[in-house]
Amino acid sequence: MMKKFVFGNPLETEAMTDSRATPGSPAEEAGSVPYLSVSGGSEGESCVLTYDMGERDIIYGLGENVRGINKRGWIYESNCTDDPLHTETRRELYAAHNFFIVDGRERFGVFVDAPQKVTFDFGYENRDGMKITVSPGGFVLYILEGENVREMVKEFRRAIGRSYIPPRWAFGYGQSRWGYLSADDIRQVVREHREKGVPLDSVYMDIDYMERYKDFTVNEETFPDFPRFVREMKEEKIHLVPIIDAGVKIEEGYPVYEEGMKEGYFCKKEDGTEFVGGVWPGRVHFPDMLNEKAREWFGQKYSFLLDQGIDGFWNDMNEPALFYGEDNLDEVFRKLEDYGNQELDIKSFFGMKNLVLGIANRKEDYETFYHQYRGERVRHDRVHNLYGYNMTRAAGEAFEKLKPGERILMFSRASYIGMHRYGGVWTGDNCSWWSHVLMNLQMLPGLNMCGFLYTGADLGGFGANVTEDLLLRWLELGIFTPLMRNHSARTTRRQEFYQFGHTEDFRNVIGLRYGLLPYIYSEFMKAAVTGDMMFLPLAFLYPEDRSAAEVEDQLMVGEAMMIAPVYRQNARGRYVYLPEEMKLYRMRSLDSMDQEILPAGHHYVRAELNEVLVFVRPDQVVPMSQGGCCVEEVDMSRLNLLHFVKTEAVCELYHDDGVSRKIDFEKGITRITVKADGTIKTEGMLDPECCLV
Amino acid sequence: MMKKFVFGNPLETEAMTDSRATPGSPAEEAGSVPYLSVSGGSEGESCVLTYDMGERDIIYGLGENVRGINKRGWIYESNCTDDPLHTETRRELYAAHNFFIVDGRERFGVFVDAPQKVTFDFGYENRDGMKITVSPGGFVLYILEGENVREMVKEFRRAIGRSYIPPRWAFGYGQSRWGYLSADDIRQVVREHREKGVPLDSVYMDIDYMERYKDFTVNEETFPDFPRFVREMKEEKIHLVPIIDAGVKIEEGYPVYEEGMKEGYFCKKEDGTEFVGGVWPGRVHFPDMLNEKAREWFGQKYSFLLDQGIDGFWNDMNEPALFYGEDNLDEVFRKLEDYGNQELDIKSFFGMKNLVLGIANRKEDYETFYHQYRGERVRHDRVHNLYGYNMTRAAGEAFEKLKPGERILMFSRASYIGMHRYGGVWTGDNCSWWSHVLMNLQMLPGLNMCGFLYTGADLGGFGANVTEDLLLRWLELGIFTPLMRNHSARTTRRQEFYQFGHTEDFRNVIGLRYGLLPYIYSEFMKAAVTGDMMFLPLAFLYPEDRSAAEVEDQLMVGEAMMIAPVYRQNARGRYVYLPEEMKLYRMRSLDSMDQEILPAGHHYVRAELNEVLVFVRPDQVVPMSQGGCCVEEVDMSRLNLLHFVKTEAVCELYHDDGVSRKIDFEKGITRITVKADGTIKTEGMLDPECCLV
Repeated sequence: MMKKFVFGNPLETEAMTDSRATPGSPAEEAGSVPYLSVSGGSEGESCVLTYDMGERDIIYGLGENVRGINKRGWIYESNCTDDPLHTETRRELYAAHNFFIVDGRERFGVFVDAPQKVTFDFGYENRDGMKITVSPGGFVLYILEGENVREMVKEFRRAIGRSYIPPRWAFGYGQSRWGYLSADDIRQVVREHREKGVPLDSVYMDIDYMERYKDFTVNEETFPDFPRFVREMKEEKIHLVPIIDAGVKIEEGYPVYEEGMKEGYFCKKEDGTEFVGGVWPGRVHFPDMLNEKAREWFGQKYSFLLDQGIDGFWNDMNEPALFYGEDNLDEVFRKLEDYGNQELDIKSFFGMKNLVLGIANRKEDYETFYHQYRGERVRHDRVHNLYGYNMTRAAGEAFEKLKPGERILMFSRASYIGMHRYGGVWTGDNCSWWSHVLMNLQMLPGLNMCGFLYTGADLGGFGANVTEDLLLRWLELGIFTPLMRNHSARTTRRQEFYQFGHTEDFRNVIGLRYGLLPYIYSEFMKAAVTGDMMFLPLAFLYPEDRSAAEVEDQLMVGEAMMIAPVYRQNARGRYVYLPEEMKLYRMRSLDSMDQEILPAGHHYVRAELNEVLVFVRPDQVVPMSQGGCCVEEVDMSRLNLLHFVKTEAVCELYHDDGVSRKIDFEKGITRITVKADGTIKTEGMLDPECCLV
Repeated sequence: MMKKFVFGNPLETEAMTDSRATPGSPAEEAGSVPYLSVSGGSEGESCVLTYDMGERDIIYGLGENVRGINKRGWIYESNCTDDPLHTETRRELYAAHNFFIVDGRERFGVFVDAPQKVTFDFGYENRDGMKITVSPGGFVLYILEGENVREMVKEFRRAIGRSYIPPRWAFGYGQSRWGYLSADDIRQVVREHREKGVPLDSVYMDIDYMERYKDFTVNEETFPDFPRFVREMKEEKIHLVPIIDAGVKIEEGYPVYEEGMKEGYFCKKEDGTEFVGGVWPGRVHFPDMLNEKAREWFGQKYSFLLDQGIDGFWNDMNEPALFYGEDNLDEVFRKLEDYGNQELDIKSFFGMKNLVLGIANRKEDYETFYHQYRGERVRHDRVHNLYGYNMTRAAGEAFEKLKPGERILMFSRASYIGMHRYGGVWTGDNCSWWSHVLMNLQMLPGLNMCGFLYTGADLGGFGANVTEDLLLRWLELGIFTPLMRNHSARTTRRQEFYQFGHTEDFRNVIGLRYGLLPYIYSEFMKAAVTGDMMFLPLAFLYPEDRSAAEVEDQLMVGEAMMIAPVYRQNARGRYVYLPEEMKLYRMRSLDSMDQEILPAGHHYVRAELNEVLVFVRPDQVVPMSQGGCCVEEVDMSRLNLLHFVKTEAVCELYHDDGVSRKIDFEKGITRITVKADGTIKTEGMLDPECCLV
C-alpha cells in the first residue's frame, strides 16, 4: 500500500506514471505521515524527516550510491555531481534515486519525490538515527507498506512505470575507451577481438569521434565516410555506440547552436541571456531539457546519427557537469592576480589553491540559470536532479517517433527515478580499484529497486591503472550485468584484453557471458515486464534467514542463480554463505566446469583467477548456450542446462527477436521442465535441443 | 645467509649496523647476483633487476605501502611523499622500506639499500614478472637466503640493529587532533576522558601549539606558562606530545633561523643560497639533516621542550613535504597571468588547473637543492629518502646525550630502514575509510619486517569524516598496536569518543587495551630485543598451511594470540581461518567475555559492534591486567590469564620500569606456567597473583 503526502507546492517530476495514490494529503496534514517525524518545511526552509532506527534495521535502496547493500552508517546526498573519485566518504554520485526501504523492527518504504537536493542521513550523525533533509521547495513523499520487501519493490515499480528495454545485442560485450581517435583505432579493437576469438558486440565512441566535441557531428578527417564505416562494422557484427554530451558548443555556423539560439532553447540567466558554461568543447550553452519544446528539438537531433546507421547512444555530462561557469572565471582570474601581487603566506596560498580547485560544479553557478518548465521559470538548483533524466527522455521520446518499431540502446550518466523508462545508467567514472568491484556488486540491487535494470559499471575501472588480474576478476562479475562494458580514461593504462598476456583467460571468461546470455536476457526481460528485480540481496529471497540479511558480497541473479564473485587481489577463493543447499558450478570456460553440491551454511570456496562461481538453487535450471562471437551468433536451438533438480525444475525462458519494441511476453516464453530422473520437456516458442550439464 | 652486492658508487645510508656481509662483490660481478637478472645500471642509467615469479609465490615486506600482506599485483615506489589520499592505486607513501621476501617456488629476501627513488613492480606490468628499477646512482643490494621466512627476517633485523624502544606510557591511549588550539582545549580533552572513565595517557599537540608554526617555540598566548601546564598534565598522568616539523621559518630574530643561517646548516641551491620552500610557517629553509653538524645542532634544539618537561615528540613533514618551492611560484604566477590574458579553451583550462595542482612536492624542486653529506655535496633527489630518517636520528642521537638514562617517545612520518633505531613511525595521513582499517592491519607485518615495531595508524582516520561505528571498529584493532592514537584533521568531524553517543562502548574497548597491556608491552619488548616480529602473517607461524598463506585479514600478535578484527560496516561477525584448534575469547569488556574452543578450519564468528575477538593458541597463555585509567595505574601484581592449556603452557612475560634506556631482558622476565589441571606457577621478576579466566 502506498500513501502520498504533498509538502508545499512541489514541481511535477513525472517519476510516477501511476497516480493511484493521488490526490494525497495536503501539507497541513503532514502530521499524519506514518513512521517519520516531520519538522520544518515552511516556505524557504528545509524539511526534515526523522526516524529512530532499531538496532537491527537494514536499509535497502538509494540506487546509485557508495557503500553497502545495507545503506546504514553513512550520509548520502541526492545532488547529481560529476566527481570521479568515488571513495567511501563521497556523499553524492551522478544520480538521485530517492527510494529506499527500511526492513527491521518496522518495514516501510520511502520515496522522496523532490528534484532539488535531498540528504539521507542513515546513522551518520547519530548511529541509530535517520534524518532526511529536503532542501527548500515543495516535494511529494510516498510511504509504502507491505508484507515483504520484494513485493513492496514491485508495487513501487508498478507506480513508476516499466523499465527501459534495450536491444538484445546490447547484452553483448562492449569495448570502450576515451582515446579511440579514429576509425582505424576502432578497426584495430575489432580485429584484435575477432582474431583472438574474444567475443564482441559493440565499440563505444567517446568524445573523440566528434568534431571538436560538438554534439551531432562526426570528425570527417578521423572518421571519413562515417555511414560506410558504420556499415563496415555492422558487417563485422559490431554496433558503434557514440556518446552525446549535454553542453552545446557556442560556435557561429554550427547548426545545433544556431537553432538553439534562434528558438531560445538554451538555459538563460536572470537577465535573459544564455548561461555560458565550460565543458569539453570549451564554452557551451545547456539545452533546456525541462522545456518540452527544447527537449523535442534536442531529441530530433539524434537522427543525425540514427540516419547514418547508429542504433545506440550514451548520454554523458548531463548532471550537468560544469568545468567552470564563465561569469565566475573572470572573478577567479581577478583574484589570482591579487594573489600574485601579494606576498603569499600559507593561508593565502591555500586560498589560491582552493579557488582554482573549486571552479568546477559550483553551487553558485547552478544558481544563476533557469529553465522554462511547464510554463514557469524555474531556477536550475530547484530542479537540478531532473536534468540528465530529461536529456535522456528527450532521446527516448524522439526514438519512439524516429524508430517506432525498433529498440535503440540508450544509457545515461545522470539520472532520476522516471528516467528508467527511457534508458539505463552506467555507474559513472569509477576507478581501477578492487574495492570498486564490490561497490559495483553492491549498487546493483538498489539500482534495480529504483527501476534501473539496464546497468553496469566501467569494467576494469575508468580512472587509474588496472592490472590484468583486476580486469579479469571484474569481468567475472561483469558477465552477469546487463551492460557489460570495458571502459577506461585516456591517460590511464590501456585495458583492452589484448594489452595483457593471458588471452585465453579473457576468451573463456567473456565467452561465459555468451553462454549465459539466454538466462541473463530472459531474467532481465522478466524483471522489466513484471516490475521485479534482476539482482536481489539474499534477504529478498530468504527473508527469515538472519545470516542471509548480513551478506554484502553475493547476489541472487533472478530466481535460479546466486553469484559470489572474487573481488580481492591474490585471492584463490572466497567465503560464501548458502541460505540453503545449492549446486556449485565452478566454471573455467563453456567447456570446462566442475560441479559440487554444497549444504546450507558457510563455506570457503576455491576460485582460481580464471574461475567463476555460479550457484544453482534447488529445483532450478539455468539454460546456457554454446556461446558465440557476438549475440547474433548465439544459437538458441541447443541449450546446456545447469541444473539442481531434487524433484522437478521448471525454467521459463524468455526470448524474442531482440529488436522489436513491442513485447509479447507470453509468446516469448519457453517452458523447460527437468525431472529428477533427468527427463527434459520443452514447450513454448523455442524448441531447443537440451542437454544436462 | 646474506650476500652483499655493490653497484656503482653507493652512498652510505647507515641502514645496516652489522656489515658482516661486507666487503661485497663489486659492481662488475653483478652477474653473480642470485635469483635476479641485472641489466642497465651504468653511469647515469637506471639499474633493472628482474625475476620470473612462480604462480603461487607470495611477496612479504615493503613496510609502509598500500595493498595486501602479499604485495603481489601492484607497483610501488620508494619515494617519500606527502600525499594524503591513500587509495589502492597510490604507488608511494611517506616511507622507503626496500626490504621484501619472496616465498614460493624459491625463497629469498632482497634489500635494496638505495636512498634515491626505487620502483618495485610485483606483477603490475606483467602478471608473473617482478621488476625492480633503481634510479641512477649507485646502490647496495643484499640477498638473503634461509629455511624459513621468520628466521630470515631475524637475520635481516640483526644486520640493521635493534629497533627503537619507547617509554611504557607510550603504549597507553593517546588523543590527538589538528585543531587543539589552546591549553584549555587540551584540558577539556583530558577532563572528558577522566570524567567518563575512558583511559588516556597522552594528548598530542599538532602544529597549533607553536608560535606561527615555528619549531621549538610555544605560543604563549594560547599556552601560557607552558612548563606549568606540562606539570599540571603530568599530575593528571597525561604526557603531552608536541609535533616538530622539518622546515624552519624564515624570520629575522627567530633564533633557530638565525643560528642555522649563521652556521650554514640549511640546504642550499647550486648558487650557494638557501633553498626556500613553503610549508605551514610559510617560507622556510630545510635543515640539512644529512650534515652531521647540522643534525647535531637540530637535535639539541629539542631540549627547548625537554627542559619544559616534555618527554615525547612526533616528527612530521619530513619527506620533506613541499607545498611549493619559492622559485617555481614566480613562474606559476607568470603562467597564470598568461592564462588570464587569453581566451581559455578547454586545453588551456586544464593546463591552468594542473599547473596549480602540481605546485606541491614537485620533482623539479627537489632537484634544486643540495646536502653536505660526509664531506660531499649531494643533490637532494639522490638522497631524498634519507631526509626524514636523519631528522629523527638528529633527535634520537640528541636524546641519548640530553636524557641519557631515559626513553623519550619519538615517531616520524617519513622514514627509511635505519631510522627504526631512533624512532617509530605512524602510517601518515590516512582517511576515515573502512578500507583503511584493513590497510592498517595489512601494513603491520611489513613494517615489523623492516624494523618498525613502534607503529600505528591514525585511529578513526585523519582525513574525511568518521562515523561512530567506524571509530569503534578501528579502535578494536588499535588496542593491539603499540602506538594507539586517535587523530584527525582540522576540517573533519571531531572524533574524540565523547563526540558520540555510546560512551560505554568506548570505555570498554579502550579499557581492553589496558587489560592487554602486560602482553602487548611484553611482546613488543621481546620482538625488539630478539629482532623478531610482533605482528606476523599466519604463514610465518604455519608455513606448511596453504590456507594460512592466503589469509589477508588476520594476524598473529606474538606467539600466543591471533587477532581477527571486523572491518566492514554493519557486519555482526566475520569469517576467520584457524590453522589449528584455538580458544576464542569474545570480549565486551574486561569484565564481560565469553569463550569457546574452535577446531581448525574456516569459521563464521559473531562479533557485535562492541565485541573484540581474541584467539589463544594451544598451550599458550595471555596475561591481562585489571585495566586502569593510565599505564601507570595498571597493576602487575594481579593478572588474569587467558589460556588454552592442553598439556602445559609457559608464558614469558617481560616487564620493567618502562623508562630506563638500559634493558636487562633476562631480569625482566616472569615465567608463568599453567598446567592442564589449572595449577599456576610463577617465577621471575614479578610475583603476580594469577587467575585463570
